[in-house]
Amino acid sequence: MLKTDVLVIGSSAGGMVAAVTGKRINPDKKFTVVTINEKTLVPCGIPYVFGTLGTTNKNIIPVAENFAKMGIEFINDEVLEIIKEEKKVLLKNGQDIAFDKLIIATGSLPFKPLWLKGADFNNVYAVPKNKIYLDAMQEKLEQADKIVVIGAGFIGVEMSDELHKAGKDVTLLERLPNILSLAFDADISDRAEVILKDNGVKVLTNTTVKEITGLDRADGVLLDDGTKIDADAVILSMGYKPNSELAIKAHLGINDAGFIKVDEYMRTSHSDIFAVGDCAEKKHFITGESVPMMLASTACAEARLVGLNLFGISAIKTFTGTISIFSTALGSRGFGVAGITEKEAKAIGINYVCGSFEGADRHPASLADTQKQFVKFIVAKDSGVILGGEVAGGLSTGELTNTIGMMIQNRMNISSLLTAQVGSHPLMTASPAGFPLIKAAEMAVYNMLKK
Amino acid sequence: MLKTDVLVIGSSAGGMVAAVTGKRINPDKKFTVVTINEKTLVPCGIPYVFGTLGTTNKNIIPVAENFAKMGIEFINDEVLEIIKEEKKVLLKNGQDIAFDKLIIATGSLPFKPLWLKGADFNNVYAVPKNKIYLDAMQEKLEQADKIVVIGAGFIGVEMSDELHKAGKDVTLLERLPNILSLAFDADISDRAEVILKDNGVKVLTNTTVKEITGLDRADGVLLDDGTKIDADAVILSMGYKPNSELAIKAHLGINDAGFIKVDEYMRTSHSDIFAVGDCAEKKHFITGESVPMMLASTACAEARLVGLNLFGISAIKTFTGTISIFSTALGSRGFGVAGITEKEAKAIGINYVCGSFEGADRHPASLADTQKQFVKFIVAKDSGVILGGEVAGGLSTGELTNTIGMMIQNRMNISSLLTAQVGSHPLMTASPAGFPLIKAAEMAVYNMLKK
Repeated sequence: MLKTDVLVIGSSAGGMVAAVTGKRINPDKKFTVVTINEKTLVPCGIPYVFGTLGTTNKNIIPVAENFAKMGIEFINDEVLEIIKEEKKVLLKNGQDIAFDKLIIATGSLPFKPLWLKGADFNNVYAVPKNKIYLDAMQEKLEQADKIVVIGAGFIGVEMSDELHKAGKDVTLLERLPNILSLAFDADISDRAEVILKDNGVKVLTNTTVKEITGLDRADGVLLDDGTKIDADAVILSMGYKPNSELAIKAHLGINDAGFIKVDEYMRTSHSDIFAVGDCAEKKHFITGESVPMMLASTACAEARLVGLNLFGISAIKTFTGTISIFSTALGSRGFGVAGITEKEAKAIGINYVCGSFEGADRHPASLADTQKQFVKFIVAKDSGVILGGEVAGGLSTGELTNTIGMMIQNRMNISSLLTAQVGSHPLMTASPAGFPLIKAAEMAVYNMLKK
Repeated sequence: MLKTDVLVIGSSAGGMVAAVTGKRINPDKKFTVVTINEKTLVPCGIPYVFGTLGTTNKNIIPVAENFAKMGIEFINDEVLEIIKEEKKVLLKNGQDIAFDKLIIATGSLPFKPLWLKGADFNNVYAVPKNKIYLDAMQEKLEQADKIVVIGAGFIGVEMSDELHKAGKDVTLLERLPNILSLAFDADISDRAEVILKDNGVKVLTNTTVKEITGLDRADGVLLDDGTKIDADAVILSMGYKPNSELAIKAHLGINDAGFIKVDEYMRTSHSDIFAVGDCAEKKHFITGESVPMMLASTACAEARLVGLNLFGISAIKTFTGTISIFSTALGSRGFGVAGITEKEAKAIGINYVCGSFEGADRHPASLADTQKQFVKFIVAKDSGVILGGEVAGGLSTGELTNTIGMMIQNRMNISSLLTAQVGSHPLMTASPAGFPLIKAAEMAVYNMLKK
């Protein structure tokens, strides 16, 4: 039987960061990572494989090389079972590995709608984080001209835009009234939809799919209203489910949505077993509620925390919930969100006000690559605490969203933003006099005083 | 005699934002702005007039139009004197204006080195925020081929890069060992210097100017070591001095460096007279010391504060000092800083550690427009409080620097950054696993524990 101090299952963002951080803090401990993936993909880069990058080979994290440099053992195999009473796992190759600490970072799998006729046709694809699958899929898609994408979340929208860039005739279907509507308020998603359509993607919202048509191969998608859309291939981007099967079999605590239950140190119901990333339960920083949030950035934050706390729990290093911060881009336009949206505030019954402002992301706005920049804040009406923010702008939107994230994590008051200092530069930011972050805060404060 | 509730002298960033914010909060009060500039320039955009923009007409803030929309009186004249005992000012056109509150926002003027022979030749230029001067200068520079720029602060560096873009043969002279060395540590300024040179600007550091040669027109610059550099025109970018003459004549308190003294509400020694922007004293957020910092972004923060506090001081709205946050760009590369540099920490005698990391600003780094992204933190060794941060990267550097600024203003601890959540996207940010902000924080924490 092999022995290791720390065993990590999975080598994507969560597994890799947990191993690397833990090993740096504990150089004398033996770390072993077991993964079914010989090559690990940059998870957020996957849609860009189908257009901008052109191949998964440009989207690889050199995990094995990084591990080798740090003295972390790397085993390319599958864990069949976790035997928690004996603190060991069983590999497909027949070996056992005994561990002192175990980190489960098994990620998520695409959600396959069993109710959908045709979902199992061989030219109907999901988007798993699996190089072998995606390489085969990309090769097949070369022959396809008309592609229908079902589900307009981040993956669906990014896949549609990239496949269109690669010359495909793409139709994106969404059953809700807006694309990206679980992430953004309509202020932002309407802007994204206009750009996606301008780029040439056909977008149909409020649209329910009845079935995928064809005999053994999909030849189209039939909608509830009787319309048929021709398709040479169909892509299902209907969300992901936590890959928590090993944990379920080991009788670790699992929540109603299938995520592995964890405490604020990411410990499962067994105190030597941690879980991080898409397979681990997420509580929301603002609401405290369990949320089905799956983000590489959250996985990394959780993984760092586990790496730091493995052999000694530190009271200042706890995970206080996901702020659900993320961003996407369409061409030179970026969209970002952190905290809760107005829609969520309303649904939860929070007493809130909003403030928004649209300016330009360069100054003067006569500069050639200037993009409109829109910022919206969601603020607790009574206390002024910033609960959420959304941005539509140019490619600096990613980092502007991170500034908002930092405010939320610090539970900053919107009033303090009125006199906050931001740096500005003509070629990189809005004007200091019309900085959308501050002007939107002003509007929120006026709305607090008014109502 | 004219009467106004609030009189503002100056219409650049500080004056404009003070008037607009004050008027929005106090719609029933009469606001009047007096300015010598018929047209107000975007201050940070001025260097870009000489290359990227091509004309000052693309670099105008529509101040008069904004004021008209809001019902703010606009007078294009010069204030000759402030008579504080009578709470009135005297205009050049002979009129008096009585005020209840006065906001001095007279800005700064280029520093002219009287000791430098040739500094008054008519083809030797400064860079004032004055459209008429700059238009005439730009016309004259059309005939110049060889241009020498003296002083490698932000204006000198940006002017050099832009004049080179416009086809000029540019030599930039700096007496210190590094360009931009009052702003950045050498980690950053070395990177900027390489790019500036690669772009084609000749950069000479450790270089002292003896005199500007010529009879009535400059024909070159003579260095201390005897070298002569030919020049058809010379640009002096040797800093700015506060334009506090009116305040001095009115016997308001002035500090040793010539700035108008202000309290944390930006009130001068007369409680109905405020000063904001380049003419007003700046205390440093970290050190508490007076600093000769002149930034449009700081001016805007001060001006908002004054606008909010004009007719009722609010204890939560005070200016707690400049975090001296700023950024610049050379082509597609950005450089930013907030708080104190390592050099400053050392000079003041702060017990500090640093942490730095270099990664890429896109992920995967195989994406076409990927730039290296370097982040450095300066941290108080005992408490872990973040004192400063510096960034070199792509054009998202402006907003990344603002994220660091937000941390400094919140007096965040570097440890909390280890588990901070940042959003990431292939086309807009670094990878979440190798996010330079967090990796640099990790390095700082290791250095805290080590030493």
